[in-house]
Formats: sequence, structure tokens, C-alpha cells
Amino acid sequence: MSVYVHGVGMTKFGKFPETSLKDMLLQASVEAIKDAQKPKIDAVFVGNFMGGSTSNQEILGSILANELGLGHIPATKVEGACASGGMALRQGILGILSGEYETVLVTGVEKMKHVSTVEITEAINAAMDNGSNEKYAGLTFPGFFGVLANRYFYETGASKKHLAKVALKNRNNAVNNPLSQFTTPTTIEEIMNARMITEPLGLFDCSPTTDGAAAVVISRKKSAIKFLASAQASGPTQMQEAADLLSLPAVKESRKKAYEKAGISPKDVDVIEIHDCFSMTEIISSEELGFFQKGEGYKALDNGDTLPTGKFLINTSGGLLSKGHPIGATGVSQIYQIVSQLRGAAPNQVDSDRIGLAQNLGGTGSYSTVHILERL
Amino acid sequence: MSVYVHGVGMTKFGKFPETSLKDMLLQASVEAIKDAQKPKIDAVFVGNFMGGSTSNQEILGSILANELGLGHIPATKVEGACASGGMALRQGILGILSGEYETVLVTGVEKMKHVSTVEITEAINAAMDNGSNEKYAGLTFPGFFGVLANRYFYETGASKKHLAKVALKNRNNAVNNPLSQFTTPTTIEEIMNARMITEPLGLFDCSPTTDGAAAVVISRKKSAIKFLASAQASGPTQMQEAADLLSLPAVKESRKKAYEKAGISPKDVDVIEIHDCFSMTEIISSEELGFFQKGEGYKALDNGDTLPTGKFLINTSGGLLSKGHPIGATGVSQIYQIVSQLRGAAPNQVDSDRIGLAQNLGGTGSYSTVHILERL
Repeated sequence: MSVYVHGVGMTKFGKFPETSLKDMLLQASVEAIKDAQKPKIDAVFVGNFMGGSTSNQEILGSILANELGLGHIPATKVEGACASGGMALRQGILGILSGEYETVLVTGVEKMKHVSTVEITEAINAAMDNGSNEKYAGLTFPGFFGVLANRYFYETGASKKHLAKVALKNRNNAVNNPLSQFTTPTTIEEIMNARMITEPLGLFDCSPTTDGAAAVVISRKKSAIKFLASAQASGPTQMQEAADLLSLPAVKESRKKAYEKAGISPKDVDVIEIHDCFSMTEIISSEELGFFQKGEGYKALDNGDTLPTGKFLINTSGGLLSKGHPIGATGVSQIYQIVSQLRGAAPNQVDSDRIGLAQNLGGTGSYSTVHILERL
Repeated sequence: MSVYVHGVGMTKFGKFPETSLKDMLLQASVEAIKDAQKPKIDAVFVGNFMGGSTSNQEILGSILANELGLGHIPATKVEGACASGGMALRQGILGILSGEYETVLVTGVEKMKHVSTVEITEAINAAMDNGSNEKYAGLTFPGFFGVLANRYFYETGASKKHLAKVALKNRNNAVNNPLSQFTTPTTIEEIMNARMITEPLGLFDCSPTTDGAAAVVISRKKSAIKFLASAQASGPTQMQEAADLLSLPAVKESRKKAYEKAGISPKDVDVIEIHDCFSMTEIISSEELGFFQKGEGYKALDNGDTLPTGKFLINTSGGLLSKGHPIGATGVSQIYQIVSQLRGAAPNQVDSDRIGLAQNLGGTGSYSTVHILERL
């Protein structure tokens, strides 16, 4: 049995104080259902991370089913930190493959901009492992990926300028995406000189907090866009347990399974969304996904391989860095961009794309999902 | 393809200030894996509701996979308020039915006793719908089920004494269950005269807050205990949307699907765990599950039908009321009791039981799961 995409929907990403978590959840879902020509929905899955701690709102699955009048269908929320969206999608796919459901709505959503920096930092840190000393010693997500960047520089000869080129590329892509959080052009100088967040990561190297939602309707009924693979893996939950600081085993394992299922290799992929929570993460994950040799991903920034004109087109949406990163929505919004590309109507549309890949990361490498889609 | 139970594990339920959320998660899981003879685990699912808001700990899926050294397997947390455990189990079953996994570990966990009454009430209220006036008008879960009880009395002629008999039955059962939170015997007088929580529900009519975890290993490999059905449904998220205050449509719908799949009727069920978050809920759900006619469930308390000596043996574990209610663990702990009964080694063991049913409720009727198990 195969699973196909029938419709997608997405809110604008940004800061929306007047729009509730529930409003965004419904808005993206309704758009996806309309785009899919209003099929009968047999189950809903919601990806969300911090609704309970920052909006005092759980039960998003039943709220979605109930508000849209979908009947007494099974409704489920999935949490996997920043991979909540990709994991909700995978549960929807497994539900169809199990034979229990024909058509499923998967919606990712997060509301983050209404709480203070201290509160949001605390909420995000729930994606680290309390059993570790790291969190209590003050390690945060920028801190973790900053350490990785320093180590990467030390091992490979890369520099802050390579990180800046990731940020610039993704901002340039975001400028053409009307749903992006950031649409103001920038320059390499502005990025290099921006306020330092955690050495060597500056403001532009870090994804923002964001309000937003994205949705996809999938079905075992045939359509023009098919899933070639859905894969998920987990990895260490603490930095001290990493065998190699420059490896994200969850990304590598989910990639292996996905290519094996799809029967393709990295060179077959035409358009790619990578979870660039930090500029450094895009480079390391582009290696773990097999697009570049280990320790050589940064060279692509010098030779333009990952630009919309290159051979591995990474984050044509603008990525988490500039499209924005509403945690639970991110994995589903990657599918929105890939589907838009395969349909030929995306921001930064590329020619002759037939196969797209989306990779969604959770925690400091705790989770990764990889989904591969093909235009038939 | 069928799904079988290979092992179960459960911590003692109660108040354990020295034991972390993670400790409990691991303890129940290790016990279930040992009970299953240590099979290769292909994926884990965790049911949890308030880890993010009261323990600042999410990513429980990858923590479980990682701490137990299960490798880079897919790991997923499922949230559905008090039905989180039953829903995690269902996702595990769907994962096996999809063909992706052979053997899956499902663990439910909650830590609740370490926070203040105000904090826990706020955390629990995330299982109500923010879009409603009810929550802001001060409605709580005891308030909701108290209204139902008053309406039930008005419509049927039942009285507080019937509720007390539910509480007494479940306490008497819990006294024989060494894993229960409450093992002190009580009397009908003590229950009737206990501190009022919300008219007409007294202290013994309300399930407690609890620390605890429960786990189950399921597989497509054959064993002596098989799932006849897994069903899930959703219902209204607000009292004002209920067409009939004395109906829980999610329970009714999940029951219909479950009996249909299992090819059995209520009279075929030998042992039953019902989600008795309040004494009133056990009575209404016993009707919705088809064991009694609508409006007549209370009569079973007068004639002893739901006692371990009756014909519909409900909550031989002690139920949520006296075994305890660690929210995310409850649905899985129901399976622990049913499996123990079918194996012939349960607290309040009943003779000749072959088919067991577990029903897990979330929110004010937002979710329900029904699982039916058979001893082969």
C-alpha cells in the first residue's frame, strides 16, 4: 500500500498576538482540507510541543476534530520536541499503512511569541534531558550547537563565514516566500557583525521563535504526489553521551532507512528541506544525509552547491532560520514547501524537480524524521 | 495480522518524592521487557500528559530508548489528556499492523505529587478547551463530573449512596492490590460523610493525584494473550457542546468499533477496567460500554453486578479511585490488570476469565480508547 498527498495548508509564520494556538491550528487545517477537495477524514494527528506549558492547552487532537465537525474520529497529539511535526506525519502514514484509516489530516502548530524570553527558554529546555548535568550547568540549545560549531571549525578548517553563508542563502530564499517570518534582505556583513548569541553563533545563525501552523492531508487514494519513504530514528539525549560531537546519529539512521525504503540515493533528490535550527545544523545534517562527505559540507557554501542554482537545493523555503520555527509546525511546513515545489508553484521554484526530501530534527539530536516524496 | 501481549510491568502507585519521572518510566519499562523475555524492541511509545508543564521534561520517547540502550529506534510520545496511555498503546498496535515494527514497548508515566494543588489543578485544566467560557468561569474536572452526577440523580432516581458504593467496591478491590495507592479499608459511612469536593462528589468519589508508571511489550509474534480489538474515538471538548449530559459519545463510539472488530458483545466480556476518574464516570461509562441500559447502571451497585462476585466485574484493580491515577500511566496500567487477570495471577483474581476489556477516557469526554484482550 502507498500513501499520497492530497492537500496542504500553512499560515503565515511570524508574531501574531491576536491569534490563538487553536485559531492557527484550525486555519492551516481548513486550508489543507479545501486544497484536498474536502475528503472524508478518518483520523487527525497534531504535532505540538509546548501547548501545555505556554498556552495551558493540551487535547489539541480532539479540539481539531471537534471544531471542524469531523465526527467522533480518532484524534492524537504527538510530541517529539522540534520533530513533533515530522513525527505526527509519520504516525498518520503508519495509521494508513495499518489499514485502519484511508485519509488522515496531520497538522503541526506552535504559539511561542506571547511569552517572555525566560519562559520560552525554560519551555524549550524541556527538550533537553533533566537527568543530565548539562541543563543545570546552564547549557541551552544555542550553547549546544555553538559547541558543535567550534568543534567543526577546529576539525575542518571551516569558519564563521561559512555559517553566515547558510544564513544569507536561507534569508535570500525567505525573501521570496510570502509566508516567511523574515522577508527583509540582508548582507553577509550584517550577518557577520550581528549580536553574538553564543560563540560563534550570531543572531542570524539561530532560528527565531515563531507563531504558526501547517497541515497536510494524506490518503491511500492515489494522487500526483506519493511518499517514497517515511523514516524515524532516535539519538543521544545528552551531549556527554555523543560518541562524536560532529555526528547526529538520529539523522544518519533515519536517512539510511529512508533511502533504503525509497530505493534512491542522495544524488536522486531534487529539492531538500533540512532542519536548520542553527546554521551549523544545516551543514552537519547535509553531511549526515549523504549530500556531502563528512567534514566537507561547508565547502558547498563556497561553491554554491546548496543555492537554488546549485545541485543540492537546500531550504528553498527560507528554512527555520528565516521562514521561522514554530516548533510543532516545522516538520509539516517542510512538507508544504516540498509539495509546493513538486507541484511547480513554490517560492524559489526550481526546474525539473521530481523528488523531494524533508528532514526534521528534535532536541539536541534526540529525534529525526526523513520523508521522501515523488511527483508521479 | 494480529498483535499479542508479551510482557507487562508496573511501579507501585502513590507519592514518591525521591523518584523522578524518568526513574518511573524506566522502572516499569525494564520490568515489562524482562517479563517479555527481553525481545528485540523495534519502537517505543510513551503516554504522558504533564511532563512538560510540571517536570519541565519532554522528549520522553528518546529518553526511554536511549537510557535502555535500545538503539536508534523510533521513539514517540503521545498525549491525549487522561487517555494518553491508551492512545500510546493504540499507536504501538497501529505501528505493528502497518508492518513497520515487529515488537514495541509502550510505557505510560506521570509524576504529579511534587507540585502544589494550585499548580496541579492548572496543569490538569490544560485538558479542557481554552476556547470555552467554562474554564474561565471556574469549571474544573470535579465540577464537570459533579454536574453530571446531579443530572444523573435527577433523571434516574439514583443517589449519592450509589456513588459511594462504587467508591467502596473499588477501595475493597484496591486493598488486595499491593501496587495500589490506597490500601486502607473504608466503610460506606466514611465515604458518605467525607469532605465534599464538589456537590455531590465527596473525597472518595474523586480519583487522587498519583505518581506511577506502567508498561507493556506487544508484538506480532504469537503469545497466549491477543488483542481482539483496539479502538479510539473523540467527543465534545466543552460541556456546552454536549447533546446529552449523560452521554459520553467518545466512549460509545470507541465501544461500538471495538465490539465490531472483536466480533463479541458485552456479555462475552469476563473482566473489565473502566476509567473511573470519578465514581459517577464509572456508572455512566458502564452504560455507554453496553453493560447496562442507559440510566440503569446505578442499579448494578444495589444488586452487586459489578463486584468481583457479580456478572460484570468492573475495576478489580481498584480503579483510578483507589489504585490511583497517574494520568499518562492509567491506560497502560489497565492493560497490566487485564493481562494479570487473563494470566490467572491478578489481585482479586476471578475464575474462568478469558476476555478482558479496558476503557480509558481523556478530558471531559474528549477521548476514549477501548482495548479488548483474549486469552488463547
